[in-house]
Amino acid sequence: MIKIGIIGSTGYAGAVLTKLLINHPNVQIVFLASHSYANNKFNSVYGNFKNILEASCIDSEDAVENYLQKIDVLFTAMPSGKTFSIVQKAISKNVKVIDLGADYRLKSKATYEEWYRIDHPCSNLLSKAVYGLPEIAKMKIKASNLIANPGCYPTASSLALIPLLKYDLIEKNSIIIDAKSGVTGSGRKASIGNLYVECNESVKAYGVTTHRHTPEIEQTLSYVAKDNINLVFTPHLIPMDRGILSTCYGSLKKEITLNDVYSLYKEFYKNEPFIRILDELPETRWVKGSNYCDIGIRIDKRTNKIVILAAIDNLMKGAAGQAVQNMNIMYGLDEKTGLEIIPMFP
Amino acid sequence: MIKIGIIGSTGYAGAVLTKLLINHPNVQIVFLASHSYANNKFNSVYGNFKNILEASCIDSEDAVENYLQKIDVLFTAMPSGKTFSIVQKAISKNVKVIDLGADYRLKSKATYEEWYRIDHPCSNLLSKAVYGLPEIAKMKIKASNLIANPGCYPTASSLALIPLLKYDLIEKNSIIIDAKSGVTGSGRKASIGNLYVECNESVKAYGVTTHRHTPEIEQTLSYVAKDNINLVFTPHLIPMDRGILSTCYGSLKKEITLNDVYSLYKEFYKNEPFIRILDELPETRWVKGSNYCDIGIRIDKRTNKIVILAAIDNLMKGAAGQAVQNMNIMYGLDEKTGLEIIPMFP
Amino acid sequence: MIKIGIIGSTGYAGAVLTKLLINHPNVQIVFLASHSYANNKFNSVYGNFKNILEASCIDSEDAVENYLQKIDVLFTAMPSGKTFSIVQKAISKNVKVIDLGADYRLKSKATYEEWYRIDHPCSNLLSKAVYGLPEIAKMKIKASNLIANPGCYPTASSLALIPLLKYDLIEKNSIIIDAKSGVTGSGRKASIGNLYVECNESVKAYGVTTHRHTPEIEQTLSYVAKDNINLVFTPHLIPMDRGILSTCYGSLKKEITLNDVYSLYKEFYKNEPFIRILDELPETRWVKGSNYCDIGIRIDKRTNKIVILAAIDNLMKGAAGQAVQNMNIMYGLDEKTGLEIIPMFP
Amino acid sequence: MIKIGIIGSTGYAGAVLTKLLINHPNVQIVFLASHSYANNKFNSVYGNFKNILEASCIDSEDAVENYLQKIDVLFTAMPSGKTFSIVQKAISKNVKVIDLGADYRLKSKATYEEWYRIDHPCSNLLSKAVYGLPEIAKMKIKASNLIANPGCYPTASSLALIPLLKYDLIEKNSIIIDAKSGVTGSGRKASIGNLYVECNESVKAYGVTTHRHTPEIEQTLSYVAKDNINLVFTPHLIPMDRGILSTCYGSLKKEITLNDVYSLYKEFYKNEPFIRILDELPETRWVKGSNYCDIGIRIDKRTNKIVILAAIDNLMKGAAGQAVQNMNIMYGLDEKTGLEIIPMFP
Repeated sequence: MIKIGIIGSTGYAGAVLTKLLINHPNVQIVFLASHSYANNKFNSVYGNFKNILEASCIDSEDAVENYLQKIDVLFTAMPSGKTFSIVQKAISKNVKVIDLGADYRLKSKATYEEWYRIDHPCSNLLSKAVYGLPEIAKMKIKASNLIANPGCYPTASSLALIPLLKYDLIEKNSIIIDAKSGVTGSGRKASIGNLYVECNESVKAYGVTTHRHTPEIEQTLSYVAKDNINLVFTPHLIPMDRGILSTCYGSLKKEITLNDVYSLYKEFYKNEPFIRILDELPETRWVKGSNYCDIGIRIDKRTNKIVILAAIDNLMKGAAGQAVQNMNIMYGLDEKTGLEIIPMFP
Repeated sequence: MIKIGIIGSTGYAGAVLTKLLINHPNVQIVFLASHSYANNKFNSVYGNFKNILEASCIDSEDAVENYLQKIDVLFTAMPSGKTFSIVQKAISKNVKVIDLGADYRLKSKATYEEWYRIDHPCSNLLSKAVYGLPEIAKMKIKASNLIANPGCYPTASSLALIPLLKYDLIEKNSIIIDAKSGVTGSGRKASIGNLYVECNESVKAYGVTTHRHTPEIEQTLSYVAKDNINLVFTPHLIPMDRGILSTCYGSLKKEITLNDVYSLYKEFYKNEPFIRILDELPETRWVKGSNYCDIGIRIDKRTNKIVILAAIDNLMKGAAGQAVQNMNIMYGLDEKTGLEIIPMFP
Repeated sequence: MIKIGIIGSTGYAGAVLTKLLINHPNVQIVFLASHSYANNKFNSVYGNFKNILEASCIDSEDAVENYLQKIDVLFTAMPSGKTFSIVQKAISKNVKVIDLGADYRLKSKATYEEWYRIDHPCSNLLSKAVYGLPEIAKMKIKASNLIANPGCYPTASSLALIPLLKYDLIEKNSIIIDAKSGVTGSGRKASIGNLYVECNESVKAYGVTTHRHTPEIEQTLSYVAKDNINLVFTPHLIPMDRGILSTCYGSLKKEITLNDVYSLYKEFYKNEPFIRILDELPETRWVKGSNYCDIGIRIDKRTNKIVILAAIDNLMKGAAGQAVQNMNIMYGLDEKTGLEIIPMFP
Repeated sequence: MIKIGIIGSTGYAGAVLTKLLINHPNVQIVFLASHSYANNKFNSVYGNFKNILEASCIDSEDAVENYLQKIDVLFTAMPSGKTFSIVQKAISKNVKVIDLGADYRLKSKATYEEWYRIDHPCSNLLSKAVYGLPEIAKMKIKASNLIANPGCYPTASSLALIPLLKYDLIEKNSIIIDAKSGVTGSGRKASIGNLYVECNESVKAYGVTTHRHTPEIEQTLSYVAKDNINLVFTPHLIPMDRGILSTCYGSLKKEITLNDVYSLYKEFYKNEPFIRILDELPETRWVKGSNYCDIGIRIDKRTNKIVILAAIDNLMKGAAGQAVQNMNIMYGLDEKTGLEIIPMFP
C-alpha cells in the first residue's frame, strides 16, 4: 500500500482527492491536514463523508513536523507561495510530492516571480520538478519525486492545442484561448465575489491578459512547438459548480480537412485512456466527476481558422484526478487505477 | 453473473441504473431497451458513456418478444400503466422483475385506479409484488420475484416517519409531509414546464392534496402503524438537478426527549447500511450520487410537535440505487454491492 | 419631496430600496450610508447603478451625527441590535423611521431578548413602533413615526394565514409553516455557508424550531385571532436568488368548501392592491421584482386540513417594497406609488 | 398614442416586449397575437401579468386579416421564414413594422438563403428594411417603416467591435468573437435540449462556424469598415436565464494605449444613452432587465491583441428593449422613453 498524506485536504480539490484516495485500492491515507479545520472531523467539514471517514484533520505544521516519515507520498493543495518549506522538507526525507498548487509548474523563477509576485526561494526544486501532464510526460513523471500537477485551465487548454503545435498546423502567434469555468475553480474562500447571489445568473471574464495560467500554458505549448509561443488567455466565470470548457482558436498554416485533423488527434492520443476525441462538440456535463478530457474540432473555412474545444471536470482532470493519475504513473500502476469513473449525469 | 435487461433505459432513472449496473461486479447487462431511442447508441443519448458503453438501445417490444429468455432480471422504468403486459410476460417466463414505476406499489387495485385513473388489469400481480423498501421488507424482498421499487418521495418520507409510527410516538392523523425535489424527478420529457427557464429561479408546490405518492406513503405507514393513516403530502419543485428533502411533521403523543427519539431511530436503523442518523439537519448535497438517506430530528417543545427531515438522492435511494439494493437482496448478495459510493460534493 | 436617507444601503435590501426610491416620484435621496463601503461610490458596489447614481456612500456614524436634520424619513436596514441609538436619535429629531430590521417588531421586550439574545435598551420605543404590515394596520401606519417593517418570512406567512384566523376557520394550535427562501435572504455577508458552491444544487432546512421569525408570526396571528397562537415554523434555503414560498397548514374547525374559503380571502383582501388571490398555485417567479403577494388555497378533504400557499419577492414585499409602501401610507400617498412594477419573467 | 400589435407575443421576447409597452407612456396595445396560445388569456401563459393584463391572445392569422388597420406599428417576433406575407400585408396597409426576427436583417437574399436555408420571396423588402442598430443608423431608422431589429449576439458583438473598425485599429481578418448566452436565447420551445436538467450545470458551444448570426455581424462590421469582413463567431450556452457576454478579439494594427482606445470608444458613443463604457470588465448581472450595453476593454501587449467585452440583456438590448428604442426613434420620441430602467440586481 502507498501511504499518503494530504496538506490542504479541506479545499475543494483536497476533498475530491480524499474521496479518490479512499476508493483507491493501493492507497492508505495516513493523515489529512488542514490549516482552517485542524482538529475538526473531516466529515464535519464535508458532510458527504459521514459514516465513511471518521478521521479528524491534523494541523498542517504538525503534519510537516511529525508525519512526513510515515508516508510515501505527500499531496499538497495550497495557495501559491505556501509550499516552499513543506516541499523541501518532504523531498529531503525522501517523500515523493505531488503538488496541486502552482509553485513548481513554471520552470523559470523569473516568470514565476513576475506573474505571481512572490519570491521563489527554491529554484533548485524548479529544475527537479516534473510538470505532470501525463499525455506528454509519462516517462518523466515515472522517474520523478516532485510532480507539479498542472492547473485546471492549462490542462484543458494544453490538451486541446498540443497536437496542433506538434504537427505544426497553426501560426504560432495566432492562439486565442477563451475558457469558461464553474465556481469551484475559485476555491472555498469566504469572499463577497464567491457568494451564491454574486455568481448566480451572471457571466464575467476576469484576469483578462493577466491571469497566471497564461505563462503555464505558454510553457507547455512552447515545449511542444520547440519555439516560443505567446498567446491570449481569457478565463470566464459561469454559474455552475464544476467544469471547464476551453475554446481555442488558431490560424491554420495551410489547408487541411477536418477529417485529417481528427485523424491526427486520434493518432496523437491513441494510448491516452482519459482523452475522448468526439465528433460532437464537448459539453462539461458529459465529463462531470470523471478524469476525462473531451475534445471536439471544427474548421472555419471562410476564415481559415481552427477551433478546438476541450471539456474537463476542473476538480478531476484539472486537479485531483490528474494528481492520482500522476501517482499511479510514479508507482508503475495502471494509470486508470481508482479513476475508472463513469461521468455523472444528471 | 446476473444477466439483466432494462426497459426504459434512457430516462434519467434508467441512465443512472445503467451506470450502476455497469459498475456492479455481479451483473452482466444483456440489453438496454428504449421506446424513444431504439436503434440509437446509448452514448449518443447520454454522452457521459462515450468510450465506456458502445451498445445501441433495442426497441422495447423487441426486448419483450425476443430477449426475456436471455436474462435473469428485468428492470422496468416506465410511465404508469405501461408495464402490465411486459411484467406478466416476464414473470411467466420466470424472469424476476424490479419495476421502478408505480404499477405494482399499491396493494389495492381500487386505490391505484382512483389515484392513477388507469384500469389495472393485473390485480393478481398486486398481491405477489413486494414493496421494495429494504429497511422494512428485507425477507420478503429476498423471497420475491416481483419488486415494486418505491417512489422517490415515498422513500424519503417513509424512512423519516416509520420509527415514529413503529414506536407509536405521534397522533396518527397529525402527519404533514412537505417535500422538495430537484427537477430530475419530473423525468426527461420535452414540456414547457420542464424547460430551464421555467424551472430556474423559482419554487412552486404542485399536486397539492392530489399527488399520487400520497396513498403510497399512507400504505407504508399504515402497515407499520397497524392502523389506517391519512396524511397531507405536498411536493415542491426547486431549481436543482437531484435530491429530495422531505420535512415531516407530527404531533407527539406524550413528552419525550430529543435524545430518546434519536436513540430509537438509531436502534431501529442500526443494521441499515444506507441510513445515516445525523445530529445535524440533513442537506441534499451530502447524499448526491449515493444511496444514503440522511435523517435529522428536532422537537418543538412549544407546540409539542416533532420534525423529521430526510434527504435522499431521488435517482439513487429514490430510484436506481434502491433498485440495485433490492436486486442484491434478492440474490443474497451483500446489499451494499455496487452501491458503496461516497456522495459527490461539490 | 420627501427627503430620505438610508443607513445600511449596501446590503441587498438596501440596494433594492435605493433603486425603488430613485424611481419614486415623491422622494429625494439625501444620503446613502454604509458601514462597509463608506466613501466608496455606490455604483462601485452595485455596478447596475453605473451612469445612474454617482453618489458615494457616507459613513453610518457620520450620517447619524450630521445628516439627520436634513431628512424627513430614515430607512435603517441593519443587523439585529444595531439600531437602538440611531433610531432614538432620529425620533428625537422628529425624523420618521422605517426600520427594515427586527429590533422593533416584537412588542414584548422579553420575547425579543429571549429569541434574539440581545438586551433591548429602548423598550419605550417598542410600544410606539407600529408593525408595518399594511394589510392589517394601515391606519396605525399612517399615524406613526416609527415603523417596524415586517420580516420576509413573516410577511408571506402572515398574509397567508390571517384570514383563516380572522374568520376562525382553523384549530389555533394546528398551524405549521414550511417556508422556502432564495439566498438573498441570507444577506450579503462573506461566509462559507453562503458561497455559490455551498448553496447551489442543494436544499436544507435551518433554524428548525428556533428561527427568530417564529415569535413575529405568532405575534401577528395572535393579534388577529385575539388569542395566543403557537406554531411550528421551518425555513428552508433553496438555490435561487429571490423569492419566498410559504406553505402553511392548519386543521379546519368545520367543513367548508374551497369556494367559500376563496370568497373569504377575496373579501378580506379586496382593497389590497398587492395581494393577488389565485385559483392556481403561486410560484415565486410570477412575483419576482414586484411588491405582490400571490396566494393560493387548497383543502385536503381526506384529512380535513387546509393548505395556504403564499409567494413573495423577499426583497420587495418582504423588505424594500413594503418599506416604500409604508412610507407612502405615512405620507398619505397612493400606497402603490413607485411600486406599480410588473413582475420580471423570465 | 401609438397603437400597436404584437404577433408572437407569447415567446420570451414577446412577453418582455409586452411588459415594456404596457409601461410605455405613448403606446396603446391593440392586440397580442399568438400561434400557440390563441384565445388563452395572456396572463394564463405568463402569470406575472395577473391583475395587470386581462386580455386574451388572438390568433395570428386573425390579427393579420382583421386587426392591421387598427394599428400604427406591428411588432413581429416569429421564427425565421414565417413573416414574409405578414410583413408585406402590413407594409401595404401603411403599418410600420418592427421585426424582432431574422428575415429582414441581411441585405443579400443569397446570403440569407445560404445561411437560413429558406427561400426569401420578398427581396424587394430587403432593400427597404433598415437594420435597427440605433448607435449607427438613427437617421435611417427614423425615416423607415420596416425595421429589422438586430439579433442578440450581433447587437453585443457589433457594439463591441464597431469603433475598432471605424477607427481602423485592427487587422480586418483577425476578428474572433466568443459569445456566451443564457438559455432564454433558445426561446420557449419544448425540446429535450432546453430542459432544465440538460442545461443546468454545464456549458457548451453550439453552431461553431455555422451560426446564422455570423453573416449578420459581418454585414454590420463590413458596412462600418467599408471593406469585406470575415470573422469567427462561436456562441456558447450557459446555465442562466438572461444575458449575453461577447468576448471579442482582434489584432492591433499598430501600438495604441489602452487610454487612447477608451477615449475613442467614449467619443464614439458619447451621445448613446444605452452604452456604458466601463473601466471594469462588464458582467451580465449589471445589465439584467435593462437596455444597457456595458463595454470594457483590455489590450494584451505581449501579443498585440485587443479584447473588447460587451454585456447585454439578450431580451432587452438584444431584442425587446431595442425594438422599443427603434419605435421611439421612428416616432421622434426621446429614445429612452419607457426604457429608463435600472438594471435588476440581485
